[in-house]
Formats: sequence, structure tokens, C-alpha cells
Amino acid sequence: MATLLKNDRFLKALLRQDVDVTPVWMMRQAGRYLPEYRELRSKAGNFMNLCQNSELACEVTLQPLCRFDLDAAILFSDILTIPDAMGLGLYFETGEGPKFRKPVRTEADIDAIPVTNAEKDLPYVLDAVSLIRKELNGDVPLIGFSGSPWTVATYMVEGGSSKDFATIKSLMMNSPELMHLLLEKVSLSVIDYLNAQIRAGAQAVQIFDTWGGALSPHCYKEFSLAYMEKIVAGLIRENEGRQVPIIVFTKNGGLWLETIANCGADCVGLDWTINIADARRRIGDKVSLQGNMDPSVLYAKPEKIRAEVGMILEQFGSGAGHVFNLGHGIHQHVDPEHAKVFIDAVHELSAKYH
Amino acid sequence: MATLLKNDRFLKALLRQDVDVTPVWMMRQAGRYLPEYRELRSKAGNFMNLCQNSELACEVTLQPLCRFDLDAAILFSDILTIPDAMGLGLYFETGEGPKFRKPVRTEADIDAIPVTNAEKDLPYVLDAVSLIRKELNGDVPLIGFSGSPWTVATYMVEGGSSKDFATIKSLMMNSPELMHLLLEKVSLSVIDYLNAQIRAGAQAVQIFDTWGGALSPHCYKEFSLAYMEKIVAGLIRENEGRQVPIIVFTKNGGLWLETIANCGADCVGLDWTINIADARRRIGDKVSLQGNMDPSVLYAKPEKIRAEVGMILEQFGSGAGHVFNLGHGIHQHVDPEHAKVFIDAVHELSAKYH
Repeated sequence: MATLLKNDRFLKALLRQDVDVTPVWMMRQAGRYLPEYRELRSKAGNFMNLCQNSELACEVTLQPLCRFDLDAAILFSDILTIPDAMGLGLYFETGEGPKFRKPVRTEADIDAIPVTNAEKDLPYVLDAVSLIRKELNGDVPLIGFSGSPWTVATYMVEGGSSKDFATIKSLMMNSPELMHLLLEKVSLSVIDYLNAQIRAGAQAVQIFDTWGGALSPHCYKEFSLAYMEKIVAGLIRENEGRQVPIIVFTKNGGLWLETIANCGADCVGLDWTINIADARRRIGDKVSLQGNMDPSVLYAKPEKIRAEVGMILEQFGSGAGHVFNLGHGIHQHVDPEHAKVFIDAVHELSAKYH
Repeated sequence: MATLLKNDRFLKALLRQDVDVTPVWMMRQAGRYLPEYRELRSKAGNFMNLCQNSELACEVTLQPLCRFDLDAAILFSDILTIPDAMGLGLYFETGEGPKFRKPVRTEADIDAIPVTNAEKDLPYVLDAVSLIRKELNGDVPLIGFSGSPWTVATYMVEGGSSKDFATIKSLMMNSPELMHLLLEKVSLSVIDYLNAQIRAGAQAVQIFDTWGGALSPHCYKEFSLAYMEKIVAGLIRENEGRQVPIIVFTKNGGLWLETIANCGADCVGLDWTINIADARRRIGDKVSLQGNMDPSVLYAKPEKIRAEVGMILEQFGSGAGHVFNLGHGIHQHVDPEHAKVFIDAVHELSAKYH
């Protein structure tokens, strides 16, 4: 029997089932735009200390739910926990984003990295998931997540963030077999990791493919989408008597929606560069859609935020299969009051479409 | 009567007229990947000294043509010459890209900036155009260019490069009338600037909309495309007895090709995230297409470069209306020999499609 959930709108909408109002959450909803997050992070010393301490990770996960009427919680963690567990030495330099002490570039490097085992290598993540589920007490579902193999690999090979992905694209083009070996190891690690999150209590999972959109169409299929397909095929699809929906989100993937919608996931995430009416026409009979307001709209005045929410709801139109979200993570300089206006507007303005 | 051109493939292909082989040039073909460029720039002291000295700008423009069998030259300059001439104080910090000493953010700032007059405010650009034309001696056509108003405005408002365009998007959403006033002034300046380049000898012009793709579809139309349309409508379309084709290139604009193709330009530039066969099917009966190999392919081995060129030619298929290019500027760490392989491959492998 399914465990009780006081609010299951999010899970229902992911599976294109009827709901009373459109559910909403925000990518990076637990994060730097919240003063209570900044306070906790400053106490913790750094970002990884927050991730690796299950009680702190739980507290951070729940912070936005205390403020806003969100329809889902998302595990507070990072897409680079897996390569960190592989021994690459993740660290964060102020203002420069994530870096690795030991980037992976040669055949020997790739041979040497292990496939991770979450129970053994990433227990802090699983402990956080269990603790968050306990603290949520059935209020809303908890989303687990991982980076896509391609996206995670960009950081592993480049050694950090990159503008044009010169190193990994060179590897991809000059040694595709090595690139595939690396992506294979990351994929196996991701499957194990997401399944462990599901067993620990994640009720839906999202794969973040932040950098798939930097590839040409045929490289996207071969080096990013193929591995997300493999992951989706390897995931636990039912737990606690309930289906575990899978969301795949490729930023800048709007041109490739049809192929993405065929990867086996239940829901496709959209960034803000596509009109969601077009997306629904193209793939809405196959999967649900998540998105897609430009996060920058949260810099606007409340009436403008409401107008944009109304426009996107109108574009999607009537019926099931829409989870409202931003088209990317919430920006750090957004006023939390504007996030509240956004979330309330989704619930208030969407009732008439259901 | 049209002035003589020894090679007019590029102009013909832009107008969808028959050619013997597919013409090719590279965005940023005069630039840092060439050792002779780095030498000249180091002598000049900095980038703006190179742009502002017509003889040096001419020399840099011609450098890639000495090495490669290119079908067009492009004026060596920068998309930020106009705001520099408006008095914003352009400078370049090593490794950080362009910056402005006086960014434009308030109503007073926007009121204060002038519409520029190229003959008076940017004579160094026009002198460079005349000189390059003279030195080219009819070998290949010369392309003039400008940034799109939206793209230029992002730098003016942000004060430099930006990741999420928080400042300009706030301005756009909270004070759209001010945003329009700024874009209007930039547009009028661009029309004057491109027409002056045409009168000085530019035989085709390209509008670079590098950051239009950061907008949502409706904001793209209102704040970027509308101003490119206005510019296209204001340009000299015939000079020296020959049509002056206009290319519009919005990076990450693949979802909006139909509306872009309606802006009045002769050619639409494509980045590498779209399959050019799809682009041709969508808009190829209306405009010519320019693109679209991922610049990172030039990191690959010669045989791989040739294979990618062959694939894109095959995707476009037979007939007129294709100018081969990279999907964005050539990267600075590319081996010039690989650029040569690329250019020669386009000519060699394309003959059978004409």
C-alpha cells in the first residue's frame, strides 16, 4: 500500500493524472537567495560541509518549505558528489564554482576511476534522504537527483566549469571510445546512486543535464541522451506501492524534445527559451512537462511575475501533465518575497485549468 | 555596373544563386588562434589599439586570407565600438572580456547617451573598410558587421560580460519603456554604422545577436528581433551595382528560425545545435543558411574534421543557399592547420552538391 501523502499533486502531474491546481517547485529552491540558508552555510564553513552533514542537508532542504507553499521538496546536495566519491577531490573556490584537484583526462585516469557504490561511498546522501523523509512526515514528496553523465563528465574532464568545453570535446572527438568508457562508469554510478536514493525514500528523481545543450544534435544523442536512456532503463520505477516518476532536464534541449521524450522518462523539463504550448504540441501526449519561467522574471515586480505565470499557464492550457517550475535554478539575488508571489500565483491562477 | 570580383561565391550563395562549390568563411577568422595575429596584437599593446588603427585592422583582416582559401574577408573590429563611441569607456581586462567604465542603468544614463554618427564618431572603422577593400583588390568580398541592439545593450547595462543578465533583464521587466528607449538609440546607431560600412565598401553585412538566445520567446521578439528587423529595413540594399546581402545570426535561436527568417534578412546564421537539414526544411525556401559546424570540431584530427564537414554538406543537400561556417567563432587554441583542413574540405567535398 502506498504510504500516505498529504499533497501528491506533484507526483500525479508528473504521471499526467488529474490534479486540483498545478503543482510547483523551484530548481535550487534551497539555496543562496534565502537568508536562513546563507546563515547556515556560513556556520557550516563551506558548501560541501553542508552537503555532507545529513542533519544540515535536511535542515536546508526544508527551509524553503517553511516559507512557501511548495508541492515538493528536493534533496539538498550537489551534482558532483559522485566524482568526489570517485576520489577526484571536489572543492569550491569562492566565485569560481566547483573544481577538481585531479581531473580525468587520459586513458590511465579513466581506467583508474571506480564505479561508485552509494551505500558505501555516499552514505551521507542516503542518510539525508531518510532524515528528510522522516521530517517531511508525508507533507509533500521528496525529489532525489543526479547530474547526467555528460554533465558530470564535463566537470571531471575540464577540472571545473568551462565556457567552451575544449578539453572534453577534444577527448570526445579524438578518443570517442575513452569518452564512452568514462560515461559508462559515471552512468553505472548514477544508476546505483539514484536507486539508493529511491530506496532511502526519494519519491521522484530528476536527472540534470545542464550541459547537453552545448553539443551538436548527433553528439547529444551519442554522448548525453544515450546515457540518460540507459539510466532511466536501470531505475527502480515503483517503491512503497507507488510509481517513482523520472524527470529528464536538458538545458537548451528545446530543439530535441521529440528524442528526449522517447528516453523513457515520465517528464521532460523545459528551459524558458521554448513556448510551452509548442512543447506540449510536440511531446505532450507522451510525457508530462516541467517548467518553464525565466528565473529572471523573479527580479520583476509582483504584478509582472503574476502576469508571466498566467501567460505560461494559458500557453500550457487545460488538463493534466504540467509541473510548474523555473526554466533553471533560482538566482541568488532574488528577493524571497518574489519567490512567494510566484508560487502563490501558480496555485491561484491555475485552478481554472483543472 | 558591378565592380569586378574574382570570387563572388559567397555573395551568390547568400542570395541563393548557383555556385560551383560551397563558399566558406569562419567567424573570428582573424584572431587569437593565428600566431601572426598574436604577434601584431602584442606589438599594438592591446585589442582596441588594433581595432582603432586602420592599417593594423586591415593587416589583421587579411592575415587569414594569406593562409587559407577563404571566400570572404570580415572587417576586424568589435561589436562594442558603438557604445565606446557613445562615451561608455570600453576597456579589456585580461581574461575577463570587455568592460565599460560607465555602464548605462538609469533613466538619466539612457537619456544621456547619444545616437552615434559613424563618419564623425567611428572614422577609424570606415577607414579600415576602405583600406581593406583596396588591399583585397577584388579577390573576395568584404563583410561588415555590427552587434544586435539587444546584444550590445547587454554589455552596456551589465557593464561587461554576464552569466545570467540579471541587471538588463531587471531593467527589461521593470522598465520596458526605458529598455526600448535604449534599444532604439542603439538601433539608430547601428543603421547609420552599417550603412556607412556599406558606403565605405562592405559588400555584405552580418548582425551578431550573441545573446538573444538568453531570452524567452516573447521577449526575444520584443527586445531583440524587432530591432534587428528595424535595422534590416533601414539598410542600403544595393551598392556598386550589386545587392548587399544581410545575414542575421542569433546564437541559440534554433527554436525561432521561422520568425527570424521573416525579419527581412537574406541569410540566417545557425549555431551547431540544429541539424541544418531541419533548418533548411523549415526556412530554406525563404533565406539562405550560414553554418554550422561546432567550432570544437577543429580540435579533432583532420580525418574527423573532414567527416564532419561531409556530414553537414550531406545534411544540407544539393542546390543553392548554403554558406559554410562554424556555428560560432573559432576558438583561440585551435591549430591553424586544422582550420586549413576545414576550409579545404568544404570546397573539395561540396563540388558534387552543385
